[in-house]
Amino acid sequence: MRLDTFFSAKSIVVVGVSREPLKVGSVVFRNLRERFGSRVFPVNPGVGEVLGVRCFASVLDIPEKVELGVIAVPGPVVPKVVAECGRKGIRYVVIISAGFGEVGNVKLEQELMSVLKKYNMLAIGPNCLGVLDAHSGVDTFFQPRERMARPVAGSVAFVAQSGAVCSTVLDVAVGAGHGFSKVVSYGNGVVVDESDLLEFLANDDETKVIGLYVEGVRDGRRFLKAASLAARKKPVIVLKGGLSAAGGRAALSHTGRLAGNAVIYECVFRQAGLVVVHSLSEFFDAVRAFERLKVKPKGSRVQVITNGGGFGILTADALGELPLLSKKTAVFLKKRLPVEATVANPLDLIGDATTERYAVAIDACLRDPFIDVLVVVVLFQVPLVGEDVVNVLVRAHESKKKPVFVVATGGEFSQKLIGRLDRAGVPVFMFPESAARAVRAVISYYIDQ
Amino acid sequence: MRLDTFFSAKSIVVVGVSREPLKVGSVVFRNLRERFGSRVFPVNPGVGEVLGVRCFASVLDIPEKVELGVIAVPGPVVPKVVAECGRKGIRYVVIISAGFGEVGNVKLEQELMSVLKKYNMLAIGPNCLGVLDAHSGVDTFFQPRERMARPVAGSVAFVAQSGAVCSTVLDVAVGAGHGFSKVVSYGNGVVVDESDLLEFLANDDETKVIGLYVEGVRDGRRFLKAASLAARKKPVIVLKGGLSAAGGRAALSHTGRLAGNAVIYECVFRQAGLVVVHSLSEFFDAVRAFERLKVKPKGSRVQVITNGGGFGILTADALGELPLLSKKTAVFLKKRLPVEATVANPLDLIGDATTERYAVAIDACLRDPFIDVLVVVVLFQVPLVGEDVVNVLVRAHESKKKPVFVVATGGEFSQKLIGRLDRAGVPVFMFPESAARAVRAVISYYIDQ
Repeated sequence: MRLDTFFSAKSIVVVGVSREPLKVGSVVFRNLRERFGSRVFPVNPGVGEVLGVRCFASVLDIPEKVELGVIAVPGPVVPKVVAECGRKGIRYVVIISAGFGEVGNVKLEQELMSVLKKYNMLAIGPNCLGVLDAHSGVDTFFQPRERMARPVAGSVAFVAQSGAVCSTVLDVAVGAGHGFSKVVSYGNGVVVDESDLLEFLANDDETKVIGLYVEGVRDGRRFLKAASLAARKKPVIVLKGGLSAAGGRAALSHTGRLAGNAVIYECVFRQAGLVVVHSLSEFFDAVRAFERLKVKPKGSRVQVITNGGGFGILTADALGELPLLSKKTAVFLKKRLPVEATVANPLDLIGDATTERYAVAIDACLRDPFIDVLVVVVLFQVPLVGEDVVNVLVRAHESKKKPVFVVATGGEFSQKLIGRLDRAGVPVFMFPESAARAVRAVISYYIDQ
Repeated sequence: MRLDTFFSAKSIVVVGVSREPLKVGSVVFRNLRERFGSRVFPVNPGVGEVLGVRCFASVLDIPEKVELGVIAVPGPVVPKVVAECGRKGIRYVVIISAGFGEVGNVKLEQELMSVLKKYNMLAIGPNCLGVLDAHSGVDTFFQPRERMARPVAGSVAFVAQSGAVCSTVLDVAVGAGHGFSKVVSYGNGVVVDESDLLEFLANDDETKVIGLYVEGVRDGRRFLKAASLAARKKPVIVLKGGLSAAGGRAALSHTGRLAGNAVIYECVFRQAGLVVVHSLSEFFDAVRAFERLKVKPKGSRVQVITNGGGFGILTADALGELPLLSKKTAVFLKKRLPVEATVANPLDLIGDATTERYAVAIDACLRDPFIDVLVVVVLFQVPLVGEDVVNVLVRAHESKKKPVFVVATGGEFSQKLIGRLDRAGVPVFMFPESAARAVRAVISYYIDQ
């Protein structure tokens, strides 16, 4: 299924633009207008003009060629509008309108599907937010920009049935500095579903990591195939909703799909090579890890370095088992570090660690062939660690020798330095458990399969 | 053990103040000087004057009465300085200096202990940050204020052996808006240990919640007794470090104490009525819950309300099993809510939920005797929910009818409204799993024991 036009359309019609600025169609039109100017056309039979632009009574009245239709009219009118799009030669429609299968109106949904079939059209929706392409600027999300930030262009794609999950994840992710390629909320998914989108994003050069929130899948066998193929090309992080009994009941009434058994889903997902996460925070930890990874790990042996004993211990606890430090590196570090330091794993540089001490330790660990991944804890609260430790960490990350994950946290002073790490692209995490989840995600994808 | 003076001392001597402003003694002196003025005395035989203040050659030269000694001299000098404090009549000392049992110098630690015994003195430390009392202003932490924020006066006490955990937790907590009563890093704990501090904080009127990070306890039986007694008076949240094999090895070399078996610790802690958490983020979720709780839950039945189906499902999944909505409330809500809403648990007010719809749903659930706790998800990204939903949530929280936890997250616009909820004292959480952990902590303390 060729889905490119949904994301790259150069001319778009929005059907259902009204004079009320907060109505769905109006918000979408205004958003698209900013980017596409006169290549976006408003349609509404009762409205003469919107934002100073002539509003067409029907799609058929538009004198130019249109590639993509965005439909935000009341549910019962949708089949008629879609048919007009079809007659106009528009093959791609995003149907935001609700009131179909999700509220039990199966008849209307079937009517819609037969129109789509008749004109050989591809549809995203109904009952969805549609698509947002941070590179091309196509954006059918009806959240006003002042309520929901739009992402910078980047390499993360996110797909969800649920509009609320989609928009909220996006809004949080923008705040956390993640860059996006494509975001899709596909709602009822009557034509384009999760499997089609996975297939498409697997081959999308702008997408480096795929995030997926699902409650149920339409066709298990097809999904498994699409997911396996996608996972072979790039990390696919999946969060499954509705795994508890109450969540499952809610998912059934939310999307009309069976949420299924937690254990079975977990097994099937892992078999397909997906990175399975169990909460939104874990999802974001994994996204950060993959988005920022400069080099694949060669194995699963993690070395922890810290200037705070307790934080080293909590990091070790969160990671589970750690290998012992290799003899050669231990001997070297014992010579180079003060006697109070604990040369082990975690490697405790202790509270008075200087930038120099970090540099020595990190270099030694990057050279050690028995270490695959570094987790470096830097507590900036202690007086002696210099601000230039940031440079040491950035250099280690950019050396592309091994994946380097940083744990750093705190108040204003620490946030300033964490901000510098973050802007330099270093995967930095607030808590040991977040870094540990990131490490686990990366190892599960590159090593454990 | 009467520990009050550690926190309420009106006159303090800092031994080991040097001319270098970043040295431990100097930072402590400068911090205390700001608050206590001429009631803080610097001591160092080689220094004539510090910050324009006469520096005494010995504690014994100070002409006035001193209640608390803060010692930041090299380890080997500590016993002599402590003896001088003893002769001066100072019964309370905070010994920041390191180089004792924690590096294997058992002889020096024993020497120190015999001096303390001879003069009948109480000591916190050695190898610690000491105490910080946000109400009285006593603050022996050697982190410069520009590196580590100091908390506002509040009701959370935090105790840890580890200085790094103590200062970092504090720094993060200050940023998250938690108010503190007393914070103690007790290091080697040769006199005052975790059990003494628990006993003391249990009876401290300024402390409403106690947070505790431990790697090992000195006397298991005493700890269990002190913890049980404390937990009967107020929630005690405990995070145990060193539960993994690698973490356990690190804990042994960090504090010289056996970290012990994870399962045994968990059982013993729960038996004592402690709220057991397993990560720093979980710790903060629990702190927020207890700090902000206005009313104890009467049971463990949680009702979820949401305007985003997917978020409702993720919240249900994170909480585990949810009760069905009671018949009476269901009938009432079906009459009052639009037909598209899902009247169940989670109660889905759907994407176009207005403030009015939230008010109706929350009121009904507060009245329902079959509901004990409310978790309300509000996604501000959708256009229709008014900003005044904040008032509805604040009112529900302040009604003190049931504990109300809020899940709200997002970018700039959402953060503005979340900030308002936060400042009004509503326990608001970024992700469903955080709110769920908070709910579990509260239920485990008030109901499950």
